[in-house]
Parts: sequence; C-alpha cells; structure tokens
Amino acid sequence: MAEDQKKKRTTVSIYGNKYTVISDESQEHVNEVSAYVDAKMREMKGVNPYLDTRRLAVLTAVNIADEYIKKQQEINTEEED
Amino acid sequence: MAEDQKKKRTTVSIYGNKYTVISDESQEHVNEVSAYVDAKMREMKGVNPYLDTRRLAVLTAVNIADEYIKKQQEINTEEED
Repeated sequence: MAEDQKKKRTTVSIYGNKYTVISDESQEHVNEVSAYVDAKMREMKGVNPYLDTRRLAVLTAVNIADEYIKKQQEINTEEED
Repeated sequence: MAEDQKKKRTTVSIYGNKYTVISDESQEHVNEVSAYVDAKMREMKGVNPYLDTRRLAVLTAVNIADEYIKKQQEINTEEED
C-alpha cells in the first residue's frame, strides 16, 4: 500500500525536543501520534520524577508496547470466540 | 480487575540497559513487551545509525504509538461496519 506514496517529513515536538518523523502517513496522523507519546512521557515523569529523559523514553515505549500487545491479544481472543 | 492484585517488580534489559518495571502483569508479559521494545530500538538504530539513545527511544515510542493508534482505528472502523 505504501508503494509510490511520497514519504513526508513532519517536525514534531515531544517532551521539549524537536524530531523529524519521516512517514507515509498524513501530518495530522503524525501529530496525533507524537502528542500521544508526549502526553505519556509527561504522565510517566509525574509518577517517576527522578528518571532521566532516556530512561523515561524507554519506559514510555514499554508502556505503549504494553497497550499495543494487549490490544492485539484482545483482537486474537475475539477472533477465536 | 487490577485491584487486590500485588504489583510485581520485573527487571528487564532493553538496548543494553536494565530497567525495573512495576506491573500487575505476569513477568512473562513484561518480558514479552520489553523484548518488543528492545527489537524495535535495534531496528530503528539500523535505519538511523547516528541517533543517540534518548532520541532513538523517543522515536521508538512514536513508532509503537503509531501501531497502537492504527490498531485502535482499525477496531473502530470494524465496529462501525
């Protein structure tokens, strides 16, 4: 599906730093995803105020991967029913 | 569902660093999620060899959030059909 589509560069701000995201997706989608990560990092910082940004980012990735894997398991369970 | 369950501490290794994850989930689940993040970070490093670990971790979180949000949109679309 992605073939022949032009990759777009979107600059986003996450947790006070700028990142360039290269994606086939719309800028709107990239902004939505980035805002999600930004919010999760701030939430995580609230719970763990002493974490540095690197560890905070890794644990945010773990948190989102947890949601993703659970969502996938949920779908698989529904399909088995 | 989580009430009355004891939070467990699981030590995982992600991209060469140790992290303690506190979760209601089984250690097996925490290990699966951590391995997913570790693999994604290594994949991302292959594509962007000059990224430092902090930026790599943030972009990995963006990548996984993208998968999560798409999965959610997929489910919402199916429910609307």
